[in-house]
Amino acid sequence: MVNPRPVDALKMTLQRLPGVGPKSAQRIAFYLLERDREGARQISEEIRRALSTVRHCERCNNFSEIDKCMICTSAKRDRSCLCVVETPADLEAIEQAGVYRGMYFVLMGHLSPLDNIGPEKLGIDRLLELLKNDEVSEVILATNLTAEGQATADFLIDLIQPTGPMVTCLARGMPMGSELEYMDPNTLNLAFSGRRKV
Amino acid sequence: MVNPRPVDALKMTLQRLPGVGPKSAQRIAFYLLERDREGARQISEEIRRALSTVRHCERCNNFSEIDKCMICTSAKRDRSCLCVVETPADLEAIEQAGVYRGMYFVLMGHLSPLDNIGPEKLGIDRLLELLKNDEVSEVILATNLTAEGQATADFLIDLIQPTGPMVTCLARGMPMGSELEYMDPNTLNLAFSGRRKV
Repeated sequence: MVNPRPVDALKMTLQRLPGVGPKSAQRIAFYLLERDREGARQISEEIRRALSTVRHCERCNNFSEIDKCMICTSAKRDRSCLCVVETPADLEAIEQAGVYRGMYFVLMGHLSPLDNIGPEKLGIDRLLELLKNDEVSEVILATNLTAEGQATADFLIDLIQPTGPMVTCLARGMPMGSELEYMDPNTLNLAFSGRRKV
Repeated sequence: MVNPRPVDALKMTLQRLPGVGPKSAQRIAFYLLERDREGARQISEEIRRALSTVRHCERCNNFSEIDKCMICTSAKRDRSCLCVVETPADLEAIEQAGVYRGMYFVLMGHLSPLDNIGPEKLGIDRLLELLKNDEVSEVILATNLTAEGQATADFLIDLIQPTGPMVTCLARGMPMGSELEYMDPNTLNLAFSGRRKV
């Protein structure tokens, strides 16, 4: 190694980031030390601050600085409807679309036996507890349309349906702005099998 | 914004990293807070440590914790030969190949008028000073074979040649393991125009 030890240590530790291999880590370390020391200081500081202040909302499991997050304590939300999503990013996308005014539960992932992520890591017992105590009449399973997301939804359907609420999933088909020519076969399959009378 | 403020602050600041846009920043922030808090702590800590300890070797301009780096103070290196590279990563690649035992000068970039990087930011005055004081008989310009790297080399040739040392550049042509079928036209051009008798 020809680099000073702190540079190598920084490169090694940056490889813990998702999608960052040795070459990217090297590029980032060089960039931070040579081109943006102020940015580096900010990143170090914001990571430290987030680690010390961010935990989970005790109701919906989303990131929160306080015991119950703003959505869970809002008087303006419809408490009869609960939308189950995989990540805070999914929740944010739905909020930004502005079409949903109910409550959420954030799994913080999906079932993935290979990564050792089972039902207990997704807080599914807390979700069931919440359904038992709250008056939820509809649960919208808004997991991703990936193999893992769908397996997670299937798993949840079997657990939630016997407890009472109606369980729904999001509509599937052609996304807005899409062109048939470029659509993948699976989506076309969904779009045809789910076609409806106009 | 539905995220706690520290999460949004972390996402914003992560976008200062090269190649990281809003979506990647979101993914990294989520990953650090949900899947690898220990890694996040380490990254914050190593950035802080590198910022406080890493500066530049006063001779070769590479990153260093001490005034003069290990290569510059080594008695085993050939002081008559100086290799000019763009970045510490380039220097490391050459060291790992193990073919060169001379000294280095690290520009920490290349000329790039659009990014406001002129000769003064590359420490070229220090390079010329060094050539004046040391007994360097050959300067190897090992900048990248990109437009910016070559422009930087051309600029250096004009400055260095009048001061005495022989100026050389690395051989150009087909890289090892390459197949003609997949080689770009510019490289084939170099390879043909530089062909030699076997």
